[in-house]
Amino acid sequence: MTKQRLGVCYYPEHWPEDLWTEDARRMRDVGLSVVRIGEFAWSRLEPEDGRYDFDWLARAIDVLHEAGLRVVLGTPTATPPKWLVDKMPDMLARNAQGRPRGFGSRRHYCFSYEPYARECERIVTALAQAFGAHPAVVAWQIDNEYGCHDTVESYSPAAREAFRRWCEHKYGDIGALNRAWGNVFWSMELSRFDQIELPHLTVTEANPACLLDFKRFSSDQVAAFHRRQVEIIRRHSPSRDILHNFMGAFTAFDHFAVGRDLDVAAWDSYPLGFLERSHRDEAFKRRFMRVGDPDFQAFHHDLYRACGAGRLWIMEQQPGAVNWAPWNPLPAKGAVRLWSFEAFAAGAEVVSYFRWRQAPFAQEQMHEGLLLPNSEPNEAYHVARAVARELESIDAKVETECADVALVFDYDSAFAWEIEPQGQDFSYFDLILDFYGGLRKLGLNVDVVPPTPEAMARRKLIVAPALFASSAALTRAFSESGALVLLGPRSGSKTEDFQIPPGLPPGDFRPLVDVAIQRVESLRPGAQIPVEAAENGAFVRWREIIAAGAEAAVLLRCDDGAPALTRRERFLYLAGLPNDLLRDALLRRLANEAGLTLIDLPEHIRLRDNGPMRYVFNYGERDFDLSPILGEASLLLGERRLPPCGVALFRRPG
Amino acid sequence: MTKQRLGVCYYPEHWPEDLWTEDARRMRDVGLSVVRIGEFAWSRLEPEDGRYDFDWLARAIDVLHEAGLRVVLGTPTATPPKWLVDKMPDMLARNAQGRPRGFGSRRHYCFSYEPYARECERIVTALAQAFGAHPAVVAWQIDNEYGCHDTVESYSPAAREAFRRWCEHKYGDIGALNRAWGNVFWSMELSRFDQIELPHLTVTEANPACLLDFKRFSSDQVAAFHRRQVEIIRRHSPSRDILHNFMGAFTAFDHFAVGRDLDVAAWDSYPLGFLERSHRDEAFKRRFMRVGDPDFQAFHHDLYRACGAGRLWIMEQQPGAVNWAPWNPLPAKGAVRLWSFEAFAAGAEVVSYFRWRQAPFAQEQMHEGLLLPNSEPNEAYHVARAVARELESIDAKVETECADVALVFDYDSAFAWEIEPQGQDFSYFDLILDFYGGLRKLGLNVDVVPPTPEAMARRKLIVAPALFASSAALTRAFSESGALVLLGPRSGSKTEDFQIPPGLPPGDFRPLVDVAIQRVESLRPGAQIPVEAAENGAFVRWREIIAAGAEAAVLLRCDDGAPALTRRERFLYLAGLPNDLLRDALLRRLANEAGLTLIDLPEHIRLRDNGPMRYVFNYGERDFDLSPILGEASLLLGERRLPPCGVALFRRPG
Amino acid sequence: MTKQRLGVCYYPEHWPEDLWTEDARRMRDVGLSVVRIGEFAWSRLEPEDGRYDFDWLARAIDVLHEAGLRVVLGTPTATPPKWLVDKMPDMLARNAQGRPRGFGSRRHYCFSYEPYARECERIVTALAQAFGAHPAVVAWQIDNEYGCHDTVESYSPAAREAFRRWCEHKYGDIGALNRAWGNVFWSMELSRFDQIELPHLTVTEANPACLLDFKRFSSDQVAAFHRRQVEIIRRHSPSRDILHNFMGAFTAFDHFAVGRDLDVAAWDSYPLGFLERSHRDEAFKRRFMRVGDPDFQAFHHDLYRACGAGRLWIMEQQPGAVNWAPWNPLPAKGAVRLWSFEAFAAGAEVVSYFRWRQAPFAQEQMHEGLLLPNSEPNEAYHVARAVARELESIDAKVETECADVALVFDYDSAFAWEIEPQGQDFSYFDLILDFYGGLRKLGLNVDVVPPTPEAMARRKLIVAPALFASSAALTRAFSESGALVLLGPRSGSKTEDFQIPPGLPPGDFRPLVDVAIQRVESLRPGAQIPVEAAENGAFVRWREIIAAGAEAAVLLRCDDGAPALTRRERFLYLAGLPNDLLRDALLRRLANEAGLTLIDLPEHIRLRDNGPMRYVFNYGERDFDLSPILGEASLLLGERRLPPCGVALFRRPG
Ligand SMILES: [Zn+2]
Ligand SMILES: [Zn+2]
Ligand SMILES: [Zn+2]
Repeated sequence: MTKQRLGVCYYPEHWPEDLWTEDARRMRDVGLSVVRIGEFAWSRLEPEDGRYDFDWLARAIDVLHEAGLRVVLGTPTATPPKWLVDKMPDMLARNAQGRPRGFGSRRHYCFSYEPYARECERIVTALAQAFGAHPAVVAWQIDNEYGCHDTVESYSPAAREAFRRWCEHKYGDIGALNRAWGNVFWSMELSRFDQIELPHLTVTEANPACLLDFKRFSSDQVAAFHRRQVEIIRRHSPSRDILHNFMGAFTAFDHFAVGRDLDVAAWDSYPLGFLERSHRDEAFKRRFMRVGDPDFQAFHHDLYRACGAGRLWIMEQQPGAVNWAPWNPLPAKGAVRLWSFEAFAAGAEVVSYFRWRQAPFAQEQMHEGLLLPNSEPNEAYHVARAVARELESIDAKVETECADVALVFDYDSAFAWEIEPQGQDFSYFDLILDFYGGLRKLGLNVDVVPPTPEAMARRKLIVAPALFASSAALTRAFSESGALVLLGPRSGSKTEDFQIPPGLPPGDFRPLVDVAIQRVESLRPGAQIPVEAAENGAFVRWREIIAAGAEAAVLLRCDDGAPALTRRERFLYLAGLPNDLLRDALLRRLANEAGLTLIDLPEHIRLRDNGPMRYVFNYGERDFDLSPILGEASLLLGERRLPPCGVALFRRPG
Repeated sequence: MTKQRLGVCYYPEHWPEDLWTEDARRMRDVGLSVVRIGEFAWSRLEPEDGRYDFDWLARAIDVLHEAGLRVVLGTPTATPPKWLVDKMPDMLARNAQGRPRGFGSRRHYCFSYEPYARECERIVTALAQAFGAHPAVVAWQIDNEYGCHDTVESYSPAAREAFRRWCEHKYGDIGALNRAWGNVFWSMELSRFDQIELPHLTVTEANPACLLDFKRFSSDQVAAFHRRQVEIIRRHSPSRDILHNFMGAFTAFDHFAVGRDLDVAAWDSYPLGFLERSHRDEAFKRRFMRVGDPDFQAFHHDLYRACGAGRLWIMEQQPGAVNWAPWNPLPAKGAVRLWSFEAFAAGAEVVSYFRWRQAPFAQEQMHEGLLLPNSEPNEAYHVARAVARELESIDAKVETECADVALVFDYDSAFAWEIEPQGQDFSYFDLILDFYGGLRKLGLNVDVVPPTPEAMARRKLIVAPALFASSAALTRAFSESGALVLLGPRSGSKTEDFQIPPGLPPGDFRPLVDVAIQRVESLRPGAQIPVEAAENGAFVRWREIIAAGAEAAVLLRCDDGAPALTRRERFLYLAGLPNDLLRDALLRRLANEAGLTLIDLPEHIRLRDNGPMRYVFNYGERDFDLSPILGEASLLLGERRLPPCGVALFRRPG
Repeated sequence: MTKQRLGVCYYPEHWPEDLWTEDARRMRDVGLSVVRIGEFAWSRLEPEDGRYDFDWLARAIDVLHEAGLRVVLGTPTATPPKWLVDKMPDMLARNAQGRPRGFGSRRHYCFSYEPYARECERIVTALAQAFGAHPAVVAWQIDNEYGCHDTVESYSPAAREAFRRWCEHKYGDIGALNRAWGNVFWSMELSRFDQIELPHLTVTEANPACLLDFKRFSSDQVAAFHRRQVEIIRRHSPSRDILHNFMGAFTAFDHFAVGRDLDVAAWDSYPLGFLERSHRDEAFKRRFMRVGDPDFQAFHHDLYRACGAGRLWIMEQQPGAVNWAPWNPLPAKGAVRLWSFEAFAAGAEVVSYFRWRQAPFAQEQMHEGLLLPNSEPNEAYHVARAVARELESIDAKVETECADVALVFDYDSAFAWEIEPQGQDFSYFDLILDFYGGLRKLGLNVDVVPPTPEAMARRKLIVAPALFASSAALTRAFSESGALVLLGPRSGSKTEDFQIPPGLPPGDFRPLVDVAIQRVESLRPGAQIPVEAAENGAFVRWREIIAAGAEAAVLLRCDDGAPALTRRERFLYLAGLPNDLLRDALLRRLANEAGLTLIDLPEHIRLRDNGPMRYVFNYGERDFDLSPILGEASLLLGERRLPPCGVALFRRPG
């Protein structure tokens, strides 16, 4: 079992070399094990075209190595230097208006521009050859935060050409594409692949099937770009872990696909920044402004652990105020520690703080680090030291087990419902996060899984709302799982080609549930359809009119008589988006029936098992009495009266 | 008198040919009489440049004909195929930012691009020659929804050149243009027509006179484009009706002008979609989310009946949920029938549902039809059948009579006040619709009329607020009408050249009312000027300071003493925008004085006479007791307790 | 001492020449002394390239002269005519999207385009030669409202080239620039000045140091453009005052810098328009919609008086409703007079109404003037006449004295905090205006001053929040001033290069206050940090965590224990943005301690001393009893019960 450690992000190139040794000593002293470096340093590694300067990096790695630190080396391809952009100005992505997205910040490249990809191969090869065998280098980070600043999709000539070839490869002949897209609809039929335009700057909305293919194409371009670097590093730096740092609340590419070329999925966890940017209401944002959404981080831990085939890092952990949200409050006292243990509870191998020392210059100077710009300790320095001691004291290891509950997350569905929300506030991401929160408030551990047959095995409860396309394989997997399966709303409502299934939704899932979806409606804020399930339970934002077949029992009805929840054997279909009350009543009923042990948690208290070890977290503003949960167990961390931001740990009884 | 019928929009090219016969049979069976086809089918009619394939269309028309259906054939010029765009890429319109509005949806053409207009003439000629004499073809629809997706105005080089010629034709010499536009103001004077730039991308707002001329020009380009197709069809398909399907809440071109080249004005009525998109407040939108604004549809029926010189169709009637509004709820049970009869009450010859079968692909797959995508009946199928039976049973015919009340609607005024709202929420369209609703709540039938002298004849009450420019001819027509005439606010406040009249507003109308408008103000939301007329009556958003002449009596005053309503003989001037209470009190007073019979309708109940036949509609959520309105008459449709969405019909006593 | 006068803006080119004489006569009759003309007349002064037509202007000036009026002649460079734009299309500025900002309104030029600057020199030379010695011409206005419509910054090729040279001049070698900007951060390092790109169209935010330099550069371009005209006029029109009309709430260039090339700073005061456009809340906007923000005008008078080295004009005074705000209400009866005297109280030499006669054409026809378009008097005509009489009766002169209180205003800080607000509603301008209002409500006279050492002399209280960069010189000036000095929040938080100071903020100010700012946070609306100072006092939007040194006493604490206000000798540091209650309590405490005489003013009452003369203004809706303020003094203007919009004047006792 992997030991759980702390790390930090470090930029030796930002500081005088005479600070490095002392920095490394202090990192060790704090109890950090892992240091990420190098991911934005291209202009220092290759100051001019073809003139490499790797000496400083070698010295930096040596300094860290001598201090006993392990190095994650980043490839610098997220920040190509000016001379490279000047050499190939067409490497820039174009925005949906067709404008080049220029030099001056970062991520200024188009994934489809082949000459740039070759430049990346060149610098990565040189780096991998230089440092791939260094004993300090234990892992590589490829590029940085793919897609950040809306950079997955590009409308460049290179992207257009690549999309045409992608379509040709997929469809073979143009007639097949015309049929798949339904191009007859507005005389959009094409006679050659070279007539394909990127779906932007149209007079009104573009064809959703074209848009979906463009999103899939754009996602594939990210994965392909990534894979080229992976292959080089595998060759020149064998047995090192390869990882990438994903972002939160980000669905512009298929992270499972990129994950297939990773050893570890990492992500950058900024609880306060993400809360400010979220769709949560004002009251929620004010209430949690210093601790973050109690479910947001855990959801991403579970999601990305699945992307990493079980291996998870937090590559960047918020250590204080950040600079990029609409408002940037300080974390509550204890929040940074809380976030760290929430990650370890979910099986993170490493939690790495961003960054060692606050930069006094350029874009992120208002982003705090463990040190102040003048090298004095900031609060997170002390927090990190304390967490490091605690990890030692509890002998923290990754012990994650397969959860009884699987919540399905599907990037294609996120693409599809972004293209066709039908109601302007319909968000697939928010919907899934909402179900996740509902399950978690029952004290359940949840695996977030891709819509693959394998992921359904060994489950007791599978929650799979809004999967846009059904498939025979998944239908079979649901059948064979033995689990209680919740589908709907919107499940199976399209084919893979973004068409309504010939036999009506839910398409291939129809035999499972024996219902047909005939009509749907989206509802403006404030409008709701009461459902008899729970006091004040109702559908909001989305509702479907379903025809229940002979084998489907109607378990709940809307107050207008329409079926709200149906069941055939172990398969349930939910005909709308539940409000919190309906969601909670429904999930409780399902979890009970699935034989799961529920723990009634007050709001703001969350729980997570790391194998036999149970963590409890307090996101609230008052103490919480652990006694009923703790029982006879004895606490390894925390106290029976768990204070705000408190973390409790104990071995689960039994 | 024309019999009233049902129709449907059909796309044979979307379906396997072996479905056609059964489709036609079922249409007949439902009771549909009219089928619109072909308006988006260019890529099927001419798959390659110059290679026509009309056979499938001929077969489709024959199938419909054999089933006894009448065909409206659309010209396909709203959806030019890709090969045509590739042949002449400059045919694309440009948006106000100067970007081409590309291929991939519809309406991707610039009205000013002559080579495209000639391509349209070519395909329309071929179609008219092929099908113009077919016995099933009873009408033609030219193009589709001119201006949809903001396509009236284009900022292309072709548009600029055409605008220069349009100005030259209008003004003759550049000095006249400089004077008309007041170009001396900021050294904007020109010395040649070729110096004219389109009014976009200016540093701050462009000259309003230039903007108004650009709107008039753009409107003229639509009418001219339209006329070219009309002339071809008149030649090759004599004695068929020519129509076009207008949109709702749309003022980007002069519909009266296009109407002069129509036999029938049709429009596309989507009550729920239009309500969601409207400026109504949240409470109103929630309340009417399943039935639509009780006045919106009727207003357009009355407006477009005037555009069609008395002949009106509903070319597309919403049959269920649509796909294009911010939220898309299902219609209330009964709402589709309600809308259908509201149209027949207003004199519609045909109500045609959009569409026969829900498309399973492309942009509008979430738009319901009479059939589900799998050909099973959706709810509107049954509704249509019932309405068809009822039309038979009541022997429905167009019996519209000239209304005592005329409400003036003027597209030039809509242009002017969009250019110069002076208060950011000033909307000419909303203002007129508001007066319309006020009149209708008094149980009055209203004709919506253009500001032409002829339209004023035979009226008892003329309501003409916010007519931007006065004219001597209209002044005379008001005088000669014998009607009570309500002017103001903003009436006659500009010359045709968008200048303040030399003798102050209301310009030529001044002798009628004997007031001069000296000052105006716009008021932010929440600010209001109480008026003594009615409890809580007030001006909102707009108020004028008027100098009343010796012949003008001040009927009402604001609480600051300024005249609110003046009168000289039969001519009244209202010095602000009334809130609902003031509007209702004022209209009641005027209608009483004009000798009109008022019927006090509760909110949500609406009434409309089709000649001697009186319809009553219930847009509310509770039953309504018809007794006081019905008197001794007996009901041909509906019951004395009219339920929600109920329609009552009876012959007016007397 | 300068006599205080009235003026007016006049456009002879808009009117038939036969109106001029009568206009001039009426101006004199009203009591106007000064007339501004010519500033938009280029197309009349030079109808074709090189063909001047100055005769009409000579006649106009003669007419005014003969009526005894003094002329301010505007240079027409804000409105280059079409032939000039056609001759050099690259003269147009480009917006941040890279689009040319075209002809058709005004200010359509790029400050960095040298050929246009030379054209300006040519026309200005010709005008100065023609009219520079005319006895009626007492002053020149250069151009008009620099920066209006967001025209300071241009992203044209000319601007890019000029910015590169500006950077080269500033930094000398590119390494210095890389270090100053911290370009190592994201591999943004450059090797030649010609690699510099303008900071727009970047993928995410550009480097703040680059943005700050770009703002400084853009500001310098304005000043340089201005200076070229000044030099010509100094040469050809000696001993005339040179002025420019600044705008309100405008911080896009350094007005002190332009002010160094002015004899008089003028500004254009539109109280109602500016209120509508401000960040004030809805309730405030409704309450003051007819009188304007009680502090906004006075603030600008004090600010621009400083820009003009003590000499101030109001070049354009709102006389009625305007046309350009979201809503445009009429001023309250008395408001125009109130605004006029508020300006004279603050030392204005001239208050000039915009404009003489309302234009009936083009963009500003809804902007009222002293006359209606038909030459009848509008309300402000009578107001101006009354004010002129009153000025005579009180023998009004400029008697402004140096105020005990200095409020520091710094354009570089406005640039910096616009670039890095850190919380999205942080506004330097609003913050300073807020402190200004707080001081003024205590009955204090305030000088608004630049952050120069000289400006600190002879003060009792210096309020200098949010000065972004500290300096040794200013530190010394604060020390030597003998005044009580309030710093913070954000004071000294950056170096001039937009970096965090090596010894932490407040940088060079640190020895004064002996605190170090370690952490900062921005707070979303509704979040606040209570401070013990005052009942319900709190920090809002911004809060800092400070380490107080041994010499710093903590005077106030936040409820979480963090220092809120510290003091070392006469130097105080405030660790957050105060809400109104905290601000008022704090300023009262400081003013008392500084030995200032406070006058407790009710809300809406404002006071201003013009030397020994004390003005009192009533911005409220009820009478105000002057007795306590007036004491034994006798009123020169106004009555003891000061009515709404009332102005009182008396000689201060003592
Ligand atoms: Zn990021
Ligand atoms: Zn449309
Ligand atoms: Zn301006």
